[in-house]
Amino acid sequence: MSFKVTILGSGAALPTYKRAPSSQYIECNNRHILIDCGEGTQMQLRKFGVKFQKISYIFISHLHGDHFFGLPGLLSTMQLLGRNQGITIFGHPELEGILQSLMEVGHNKLTFKLNFVPLQFKEEQLIFEDRLIEVRSFPLKHRIETCGFRIQEKPKEYKLNSENLKGSGLSLEHYPKLKLGENIVLESGETIHFENFTFPPKPSFSYAYCSDTAPKEKIIDSIKDVSVLYHEATFIEEHKDRAKATFHSTAKQAAAVAVKANAYKLILGHFSSRYEDATKHLEEAKTIFENTLAAEDGMVVNLEKVQ
Amino acid sequence: MSFKVTILGSGAALPTYKRAPSSQYIECNNRHILIDCGEGTQMQLRKFGVKFQKISYIFISHLHGDHFFGLPGLLSTMQLLGRNQGITIFGHPELEGILQSLMEVGHNKLTFKLNFVPLQFKEEQLIFEDRLIEVRSFPLKHRIETCGFRIQEKPKEYKLNSENLKGSGLSLEHYPKLKLGENIVLESGETIHFENFTFPPKPSFSYAYCSDTAPKEKIIDSIKDVSVLYHEATFIEEHKDRAKATFHSTAKQAAAVAVKANAYKLILGHFSSRYEDATKHLEEAKTIFENTLAAEDGMVVNLEKVQ
Repeated sequence: MSFKVTILGSGAALPTYKRAPSSQYIECNNRHILIDCGEGTQMQLRKFGVKFQKISYIFISHLHGDHFFGLPGLLSTMQLLGRNQGITIFGHPELEGILQSLMEVGHNKLTFKLNFVPLQFKEEQLIFEDRLIEVRSFPLKHRIETCGFRIQEKPKEYKLNSENLKGSGLSLEHYPKLKLGENIVLESGETIHFENFTFPPKPSFSYAYCSDTAPKEKIIDSIKDVSVLYHEATFIEEHKDRAKATFHSTAKQAAAVAVKANAYKLILGHFSSRYEDATKHLEEAKTIFENTLAAEDGMVVNLEKVQ
Repeated sequence: MSFKVTILGSGAALPTYKRAPSSQYIECNNRHILIDCGEGTQMQLRKFGVKFQKISYIFISHLHGDHFFGLPGLLSTMQLLGRNQGITIFGHPELEGILQSLMEVGHNKLTFKLNFVPLQFKEEQLIFEDRLIEVRSFPLKHRIETCGFRIQEKPKEYKLNSENLKGSGLSLEHYPKLKLGENIVLESGETIHFENFTFPPKPSFSYAYCSDTAPKEKIIDSIKDVSVLYHEATFIEEHKDRAKATFHSTAKQAAAVAVKANAYKLILGHFSSRYEDATKHLEEAKTIFENTLAAEDGMVVNLEKVQ
């Protein structure tokens, strides 16, 4: 079990030497996920040593170029490297046609299946679920339809206490119930309390991605108690008016969202190219929410170690 | 007057650490030109210090992604940086609609005029001409419709010999004819021979770009006597069969084209990512055509200094 986020691009619309446009790679319990895919994402994946043929799910927040112009190139490269495993892309309904026309124009018939899942931008929605994780999208507040994503580990199983199980008379058939934290009533009528034969499960972690967006009260419910919140902080307070005009956030606004959502840790990102570095963003956010990091390209955050 | 080529991407379809996909910046007598625009071209332009707002003409050879997936991002960035000067893009007719849909989907109305000139791929064509240069396209031989480009300086003017002009009785009104290398007949009936009052003009240089293509006899006429020929050499001889199957060339085949065309210098490029470096390509090409270079990202070739 593991849950790691790799920042591939921490910049805003104008890429710089140090910051590529938006993209993140998330490995969560052996599920390999990409969120957003700005131009150059395939180069960033290589640079930071991600085996990108493993990626099975791609979530695109919105259709500004700095969040998806790297997608056609990534798909082409996956194909050239002989991919045959399918891939699922979640995005705005219009994205499907655009990708198709870009592939068709070069006579590139994909050798793997591309499943496209259209997102809606009206309300929170469960968009992916399996045995171990679930992903929800929720609307943000930007110039065009945009959503955030929350990746949540499901409650984990209790661990068997093999020491206590020895000579207890309990057998394999009883283990599934114990792992779920349920008591067992034996034929004899005796109740076996699961606590006596198990260790508590590991905590379940969660990650929320909110970019691009103006600060929005309504997202709080969707990101409540999240372990790590990535929230855009395109601007510093000095340029608050610019943030408002372009439907972006300042670092302080991002920090206020983290407080309201009771997030454990905040990562700031999507920094405008006008800033040399993110020192000022970090300084301003920390006046409101201490446990804050500024994203850098290549940074890896291990969610199991933040709390 | 100057004529310089900057290699922005010397790689083939799969970008590597060292080689971005195809793109070149050409500065010719203050005309600023981009040929092809693979993913990441805007980052390469920045990396190699090209002021890309100066670019006025973009030529796209064909619609494989590694030759144009960087175009929407570059145009978006030009806009974000406040460009208002128009730009002219020459490419396959289908490119226009694709660019439009990519811009529209993000509600990005360009603030500058985008003139689109559709290319035909049947025969050589004069596609751009002004006082100092002309550009021709000519069909290559690839899996989809593809063309090469030749940028040619027009014959330059004779330079006035101010020493000899002193006290000659010739005045400003006579200079234009002298500069064109024409004799002047004075009212007195006397013939003024231009050679006596001018220096010979500087030579006119030319540059041809041939990527992607299998070796093609028919292009020889279009690139005859070119100063510098950039010809793709995706493969080495060992992978000749692969070159044939994919409509690409080996380094030796590129060199043979340079010989037949009587090129002065050859630059090899579009190297497959399977090769660590281009040592073998260079070695093989030089057995046929000695004056050969292997392209590297960031390499600048000054055409006025090659001959």
